[in-house]
Amino acid sequence: MTDSTKYLLPEDKLPKAWYNLAADLPVPLPPPLHPGTGQPIGPDDLAPIFPMAVIAQEVSTERWIDIPEPVREVYRLWRPSPLIRARRLEKVLGTPAKIFFKYEGVSPAGSHKPNTAVPQAFYNQQEGIRKLSTETGAGQWGSSLAFAGSLFGLEVQVFMVKISYHQKPYRRALMETYGATCIASPSPLTNAGRAILDADPDSHGSLGIAISEAVEVAATRDDTKYALGSVLNHVCLHQTVIGEEAMLQMEMAGTTPDVVVACTGGGSNFAGLAFPYVREKIKGAKVRLVGVEPASCPTLTKGTYAYDFGDTGHLTPLVKMHTLGSTFMPPGTHAGGLRYHGMAPMVSHLKELGLMEARSYHQTECFAAAVAFTRAEGIVPAPESSHAVKAAIDEALRCKAEGKAETILFNLSGHGHFDMQAYTDYFAGKLTDLDYSEADLDAALSALPKMG
Amino acid sequence: MTDSTKYLLPEDKLPKAWYNLAADLPVPLPPPLHPGTGQPIGPDDLAPIFPMAVIAQEVSTERWIDIPEPVREVYRLWRPSPLIRARRLEKVLGTPAKIFFKYEGVSPAGSHKPNTAVPQAFYNQQEGIRKLSTETGAGQWGSSLAFAGSLFGLEVQVFMVKISYHQKPYRRALMETYGATCIASPSPLTNAGRAILDADPDSHGSLGIAISEAVEVAATRDDTKYALGSVLNHVCLHQTVIGEEAMLQMEMAGTTPDVVVACTGGGSNFAGLAFPYVREKIKGAKVRLVGVEPASCPTLTKGTYAYDFGDTGHLTPLVKMHTLGSTFMPPGTHAGGLRYHGMAPMVSHLKELGLMEARSYHQTECFAAAVAFTRAEGIVPAPESSHAVKAAIDEALRCKAEGKAETILFNLSGHGHFDMQAYTDYFAGKLTDLDYSEADLDAALSALPKMG
Repeated sequence: MTDSTKYLLPEDKLPKAWYNLAADLPVPLPPPLHPGTGQPIGPDDLAPIFPMAVIAQEVSTERWIDIPEPVREVYRLWRPSPLIRARRLEKVLGTPAKIFFKYEGVSPAGSHKPNTAVPQAFYNQQEGIRKLSTETGAGQWGSSLAFAGSLFGLEVQVFMVKISYHQKPYRRALMETYGATCIASPSPLTNAGRAILDADPDSHGSLGIAISEAVEVAATRDDTKYALGSVLNHVCLHQTVIGEEAMLQMEMAGTTPDVVVACTGGGSNFAGLAFPYVREKIKGAKVRLVGVEPASCPTLTKGTYAYDFGDTGHLTPLVKMHTLGSTFMPPGTHAGGLRYHGMAPMVSHLKELGLMEARSYHQTECFAAAVAFTRAEGIVPAPESSHAVKAAIDEALRCKAEGKAETILFNLSGHGHFDMQAYTDYFAGKLTDLDYSEADLDAALSALPKMG
Repeated sequence: MTDSTKYLLPEDKLPKAWYNLAADLPVPLPPPLHPGTGQPIGPDDLAPIFPMAVIAQEVSTERWIDIPEPVREVYRLWRPSPLIRARRLEKVLGTPAKIFFKYEGVSPAGSHKPNTAVPQAFYNQQEGIRKLSTETGAGQWGSSLAFAGSLFGLEVQVFMVKISYHQKPYRRALMETYGATCIASPSPLTNAGRAILDADPDSHGSLGIAISEAVEVAATRDDTKYALGSVLNHVCLHQTVIGEEAMLQMEMAGTTPDVVVACTGGGSNFAGLAFPYVREKIKGAKVRLVGVEPASCPTLTKGTYAYDFGDTGHLTPLVKMHTLGSTFMPPGTHAGGLRYHGMAPMVSHLKELGLMEARSYHQTECFAAAVAFTRAEGIVPAPESSHAVKAAIDEALRCKAEGKAETILFNLSGHGHFDMQAYTDYFAGKLTDLDYSEADLDAALSALPKMG
């Protein structure tokens, strides 16, 4: 062990390749299916909405996939990101555990999302696309794609979940500063949006609805493709730059993690940090991998592992994943980026294989953990990331109770500078532990597509 | 020249000492004077409001002053900060100039301010102080001291200029998340605040008023000291960590700057980047140093060089500086951190000695520059920093017109994540180029203290 606080990699240690977990899975991933035929989909089915380079990555089983130099060039604006030892937090908790966090909030958009926004924008530009459509929850993804689009000269249109659109006007302003346009979803601009508004004009929106709108726009225009910020294999792939860097940095620190923690909404920030460690676990390393989700949208802990649509409007292929049902409507908590009914098929697969654990927390206990973290380490976590903070603190307290000096590594996937209203509400005692409706969940689960 | 984009220093290159320009000034700085006696003040005069270690630094002429290890330990959370070459901006401008920026927005509070907040909190804690009072304009300084206070176990009370208090509720929320209390200034809590409110209940406040309130609180309580975020020598000293790092990083880049640019409110971010280059200039290096201020508060370009109070309530010593008069009330622009009637005595002295230049810009042209920068480089500048961006772009365009491949270095002193309302207003066409009242300025200047 060294006694540093921050572990920085020199720029030339920026990984040259992403790690593709598909190459090492002990059981292959169930394929995505065409909703009409029930048969595995091929590249042609995805071609209307994704560029070919991205489709190739989605189905690749190559272990390492080169990061194109123009992407690395942009990554260098903030990567390699720092690995920081939370020494003051350890002291406050009185734990013998060593707590490390990988800090992705140093990116221009303030989260891990640009790790995939940049290559997606690059591949689209390479294939002559002029415009990207996408959805966003809390706005982290939308502002990341807006950032990436501005660097590669692409127009970006973002469908933002309506509750977040109103809660986070400054995320919207950020997207607009990057030159993107931002639309509250459900919107009257698409068939999918109009259908929701007809049924419920006051709909708060959801990621599932916003995805339908963005996919519809891409599918109906030749010059436009769609970009997804989480869930899919290529997104998880791009995020592995986090874990590959972290591994080199933990080596600099002279230790390896016993527990790796990240929050899970669509699954990509967890994938980014954890997949390289899953590779080591498959090879025999002793490491626990913990995904943390909101109790109000408990996909991994309460969902069913089944084929389901990625969106509410049923425009996407069917993927096998943990799901609460594509019509499930999570309550409007502040962790907008975790309000998704499904989970990355790869992450779901790991859960089924017993290669990872999952747990859930309510939002007030996450904010309490985030405030303790802020006062010890100086960085204000995004509400999404506060779930990882809470779990890391709980692991550190377990170590204290058990007298174990374990090493805990968590992903501080973003800062909360655009989420200060949530902190204001928390301090004012206005935050409650919103729960989902059991009846809604039952209904959504019973509406899962019937297979074969 | 190397072809990198970002120049990172390894942690062990974090400077071990601050650079004190007082050691190299060709003409010594005029001393601060006691307002009652007109005589130079001694350490005892400052003891009620500052800890002794800070007072010693304020008057020191030692060239190098060691950075205490506990301060370096905290610095390492974000330092050394990156030096980035703005290659995309160069391309957009079509300039042969090479544009570099030192990015201080990576600190937990999002600006350069923690560079001095941390040592000030440390020295106060070492001397047994329990509480710090301070003022803040846009909130960058208040949140930085709140951050530093939380790490060293000090209570922090912040008087925030009222217009910013209302414009930037999330800066306030950030201070509260760090555990500080934040009060709109002018406030009814102090004599200074009450005097202003009696005269003008709708006062927007100003940094000068907020300083009076914070100084009054410190001067009247034994367990409380005052911390200032700019202007004074020790603050400029602490900020030189920026320039010392930048110098090493420019060496890595294989070039030296022909022009060094920073915005000037109280003068400390300019001092931080520029003072190490002033040292080289005094030794004979060819380098221009450019301070950039708002046209609405043009201290260096339109102010008088004279002895004046640092605050509106006339509680501080008299310092010789460029000033618009301590009663001058700048209009309520978005660059709250630049709305100060005075200027660091050291920066003012450099201007008088002809060692630096100054220029001013209106806010809309600064926002236009900031948007162009954001779309090229991905980072949204704080409204204050946008003044440096504008000047750097103008220098690059001058190089283009003159066909010169000069190297430009500017200080991107903070990000604009808490200032998105300003960008929203800018896009909505709601920002105007507010001007100060000439009559007010005349009145404020004619009210300058009569000396000798």
